[in-house]
Amino acid sequence: MKLARIGPKGQERPAMLDAALQLRDLSGLVDDIDGAALHPDKLARLAALDPQQLPLISAPVRYGPPVARTSKFIAIGLNYRDHAAESGNPVPKEPVMFMKAISAIAGPDDDVPMPRGSTKMDWEIELGIVVGTRARYVEKAGALRHIAGYVLVNDISERFDQIERGGTWDKGKGHDGFGPVGPWLVTPDEVDVGALEMTLDVSGHRRQAGNTGNMIFDVATILSYVSQFVTLEPGDMIATGTPAGVGLGMKPPLYLSVGDEMRLSITGLGEQRQRVVASV
Amino acid sequence: MKLARIGPKGQERPAMLDAALQLRDLSGLVDDIDGAALHPDKLARLAALDPQQLPLISAPVRYGPPVARTSKFIAIGLNYRDHAAESGNPVPKEPVMFMKAISAIAGPDDDVPMPRGSTKMDWEIELGIVVGTRARYVEKAGALRHIAGYVLVNDISERFDQIERGGTWDKGKGHDGFGPVGPWLVTPDEVDVGALEMTLDVSGHRRQAGNTGNMIFDVATILSYVSQFVTLEPGDMIATGTPAGVGLGMKPPLYLSVGDEMRLSITGLGEQRQRVVASV
Repeated sequence: MKLARIGPKGQERPAMLDAALQLRDLSGLVDDIDGAALHPDKLARLAALDPQQLPLISAPVRYGPPVARTSKFIAIGLNYRDHAAESGNPVPKEPVMFMKAISAIAGPDDDVPMPRGSTKMDWEIELGIVVGTRARYVEKAGALRHIAGYVLVNDISERFDQIERGGTWDKGKGHDGFGPVGPWLVTPDEVDVGALEMTLDVSGHRRQAGNTGNMIFDVATILSYVSQFVTLEPGDMIATGTPAGVGLGMKPPLYLSVGDEMRLSITGLGEQRQRVVASV
Repeated sequence: MKLARIGPKGQERPAMLDAALQLRDLSGLVDDIDGAALHPDKLARLAALDPQQLPLISAPVRYGPPVARTSKFIAIGLNYRDHAAESGNPVPKEPVMFMKAISAIAGPDDDVPMPRGSTKMDWEIELGIVVGTRARYVEKAGALRHIAGYVLVNDISERFDQIERGGTWDKGKGHDGFGPVGPWLVTPDEVDVGALEMTLDVSGHRRQAGNTGNMIFDVATILSYVSQFVTLEPGDMIATGTPAGVGLGMKPPLYLSVGDEMRLSITGLGEQRQRVVASV
């Protein structure tokens, strides 16, 4: 099952994709796609619907982030060997964890404002986990049960803020629009999570081409690990790290400019397209 | 004006303190003390009330965190020279910034579970800023206008998770209960924010005694600085750093044990008291 939220920013309404990837209206059946709606019983009720019986949405729409009211947006760093190497870091012994600001979450195709004074704005395609049920001190063996679905994430980063201004990476990860998510939340039954192709192009040039099979720490390990430090709530998201090919890793480094277009896709999770625009 | 939220966890209702520091019921006048209620116009309407005319709450109550639905809980590290020195860090050239998980927020007197396997659980008394109006790219000169009030915060930390497990500090800062806030949100007109005495005792021993006048970066600088990286939303909180006297800085270091009691106070912001309990 593929779920989405469509409409103007802050006024998104819930929708479901049919077999032909056409949007079907879920308004009236659920208030929104949020933590409460992701409970396994509620998801099972949605999965039992026949999308053909739901109203077709044929007009062009904006996709919002497919999950509303996320309370934590956690991210894992350096989770692919080739990316750890290109960024000059050792392969981590345990997952590297940081947090993205909730206010950074955006729709998959929203313009991304370049922060004022930014000189090192960079891209990172990632597989995102969406939490379906509360998780604390979860064993790896039972971890997948807490996952409601998967999403495509661009973990956009400002490398100067992230690395060269003291303190933690959080400074460079939370700018407005730095967390495009979606277009869809795809339930685990449709996702072979250990073998998904990932590609990211910047203004027509292929920059990242990876596969989730090359993660150092897999999805179950990550969820279990994160749950040792925080209680994961329904609707929380975890971005699981990016493969090689970010701007920071190029020789010489190449960063985003106003006018650049990022295009990202992961097998089965849809496609994103963002333009970099001047800051307000 | 002093605002509070009282009642069982997750069912808190809004209240106001009268001149004698007795609780007065605000239910029916505001839904809750959250970002929307902190708008300057709404706060002005509350400030115009005569607390003596509101129902007195005389029964003993639990205080919850004084702000509901906070979307970001940001913290500043190493903001007092004596604490930077005791923790073996240089005085930062610009504020050190990290994030605490929203799920860590707790009432001021709630028990704090020691995380499973924890060996280095530590205390940090801090002045907290509560954001009243959206702030992005704010100049220092106008920064104070965005502040709805101040709160007492204990930025509880697990030093092993924070420092010795790779990645960012966030790992050691977001455990459940690691962010006691309150008892009150106190509006700026009642707070001489640059001259507040801060004290923290652990099981009867004075461990921290500081003054907000010794901050390296003051409140206006911090709000302005953070707004360069993220959009601050109404109800967001920023903990502004701790003075010397944490367990990590003792020779030898001394950490919390199950059964310990922390007592904290900041001039005019009230008092907290937490017991460390075994993890669930």
